Amino acid sequence: MSNTASERPAVTPAHESSAATPAHESSAMARARELGAAVLGTTHPNPPVGAVVLDAAGVPVGEGATTPPGGPHAEVVALARAGERARGGTVVVTLEPCAHTGRTGPCADALLAAGIARVVVAVPEPTELAGGGAQRLRDGGVEVLLGVEEAEAADGALAAWLTGIRRHRPFVVWKVAGTLDGRVAAADGSSRWITGPEARAAVHRLRATCDAVVVGTGTALADDPQLTVRDADGADAARQPLRVVMDRRGRLPGTARVLDGAAPTHVSAAPSPRELLAELFTRDVRRVLLEGGPTLAAAFLRDGLVDEVVVHLAPKLLGAGAPLVGDLGISAIDDALTLDVVDVTRLGGDVQVRLRPTRHTGAGRPADGRG
Amino acid sequence: MSNTASERPAVTPAHESSAATPAHESSAMARARELGAAVLGTTHPNPPVGAVVLDAAGVPVGEGATTPPGGPHAEVVALARAGERARGGTVVVTLEPCAHTGRTGPCADALLAAGIARVVVAVPEPTELAGGGAQRLRDGGVEVLLGVEEAEAADGALAAWLTGIRRHRPFVVWKVAGTLDGRVAAADGSSRWITGPEARAAVHRLRATCDAVVVGTGTALADDPQLTVRDADGADAARQPLRVVMDRRGRLPGTARVLDGAAPTHVSAAPSPRELLAELFTRDVRRVLLEGGPTLAAAFLRDGLVDEVVVHLAPKLLGAGAPLVGDLGISAIDDALTLDVVDVTRLGGDVQVRLRPTRHTGAGRPADGRG
Repeated sequence: MSNTASERPAVTPAHESSAATPAHESSAMARARELGAAVLGTTHPNPPVGAVVLDAAGVPVGEGATTPPGGPHAEVVALARAGERARGGTVVVTLEPCAHTGRTGPCADALLAAGIARVVVAVPEPTELAGGGAQRLRDGGVEVLLGVEEAEAADGALAAWLTGIRRHRPFVVWKVAGTLDGRVAAADGSSRWITGPEARAAVHRLRATCDAVVVGTGTALADDPQLTVRDADGADAARQPLRVVMDRRGRLPGTARVLDGAAPTHVSAAPSPRELLAELFTRDVRRVLLEGGPTLAAAFLRDGLVDEVVVHLAPKLLGAGAPLVGDLGISAIDDALTLDVVDVTRLGGDVQVRLRPTRHTGAGRPADGRG
Repeated sequence: MSNTASERPAVTPAHESSAATPAHESSAMARARELGAAVLGTTHPNPPVGAVVLDAAGVPVGEGATTPPGGPHAEVVALARAGERARGGTVVVTLEPCAHTGRTGPCADALLAAGIARVVVAVPEPTELAGGGAQRLRDGGVEVLLGVEEAEAADGALAAWLTGIRRHRPFVVWKVAGTLDGRVAAADGSSRWITGPEARAAVHRLRATCDAVVVGTGTALADDPQLTVRDADGADAARQPLRVVMDRRGRLPGTARVLDGAAPTHVSAAPSPRELLAELFTRDVRRVLLEGGPTLAAAFLRDGLVDEVVVHLAPKLLGAGAPLVGDLGISAIDDALTLDVVDVTRLGGDVQVRLRPTRHTGAGRPADGRG
């Protein structure tokens, strides 16, 4: 656990440093976050970073995001687009530029070579291996600001990657579609389709941001889902997340659609969510979409292994049927598992609520190692 | 059933007539709807109407809403505020001005006396008794436009009053607070407080828009609620809706808080939701807030007697406990009771979803006599 964020030197809190950040740099940082979010799910195990180059007058002249492993990092893409206009300018980037040579050269050196005068960074590099970029830039005479709007970037596209660094496990998004009264299926087991086409399309977009999609044998047997990412035309997308079935007792039949070869599949005998996540982490999975039923969801929640919840609420009432989540071992309202609403979106006739487990109350079971 | 809307002569659909309505009149109509909504719950059994007077140049010079029974109607209030500036002007009003003398004189005559040149009406008067206002105005040389943005007004503050006219029963709003997984209480029965202070304050504002608040004996026994309207300071509001307990078997103890004298209370032995509503209708109740538990809610829903649903969703998970709604006799997803989302609002940490039962699908049980 040598690379946890808490052991790093304190950085200037965002609310202090951002006072020193002019509005055009703040706009560039918002754009950089968007650029990073747009490549979520395509960069693992590298972080999805966004970068914007401003010329000496503060005008945006290039932007970029992390390319798939082996390709150039965000800053290098943005510098290439800016060309000579970058000289004397500023680079605004969601993660501290690296100082090490991996499959690509150090980004800090590329910034120095391009004659950049100022670098504005949201999240300081949390690993020893890639760290030191800010220092190398400062040594080269570049002004470096660290921690600008850090929380926004850390809770955004970088959240999954940071979870990997800090907790050595993938970030887990639990997606569930249910009725207003919390049913994921009717009494007879029927569940297709609870939500409308817009919500179902959003699930495919959500899958595309993840490195793996996980279900249990129960869901695989009951619904026989294919778990692929399909585009708006219904065609399989070029990049597919790993399909994962938790099948401890070997009940998955060879005829299951999840084994159809349309995307890679991993059938796991891991006995617990934590062990499954450890297994996936070694396969470079950094962001997992949990699409299992009430029992599997409850197992992850009980172990504090859900980092984000995406609920698709259908405006329907059933009055009976399988519940959104199985037994959590909670019997009193004061012990409820509490979350914070991140945002609420209308998806056609349905409503999407995105939430994160609460960090600031003691109620309910604690999540693992949350700071 | 002689006054049902379907038997009335067809009016010009809003989307056609509104093309003929200039923007300043459309703005005035939006304001008139707001004025009507602001007096919801204070006018029963009269309709909550809003009116705006524009002078001859189209400038707003007076506005008003229905005052409590015996006081002046919206148009008369607005005319009094406008004074002489009304002459040659336009009145924009959510309901056709009446032509009859009840406790107050005919509004049509007041408009003629004030020298109004044009009257723009959203909803034509649906009753024989008060009807004929538009004709009387036209006979007096006034230009009258009927059906302007009619649906917006009819689905807004006038909905409850129109339900009374068309179905001879009160309009029913079912309000329920539950967790993300559709629980209204934990396994041990504890339910205070599922939602936060902002949502609880919204419940008091919602009660204030209703003429009666209904619970069953189960809720009265389990939670012992007072069911009064309290303002932001926690003090009882001056006007209180009727508190109603459905207590068929006479189980309500004399010590129940709902009998504390802080507001009028009606303990009903009605054997069904329909008979309870008939009873309340004869007491001039036009808008009911249903705050009972899962069993009572299910009884109203099964009988198609819920017109609007207000769900307060707490971002919590319980995994067990009483469900949002009891058995609806539905076993397959295709038979789910379907609703349309009207709006979604954040209330502090909670989310409010307002819905209306769907009119345009054949799925689920039909509502009573919906057109």
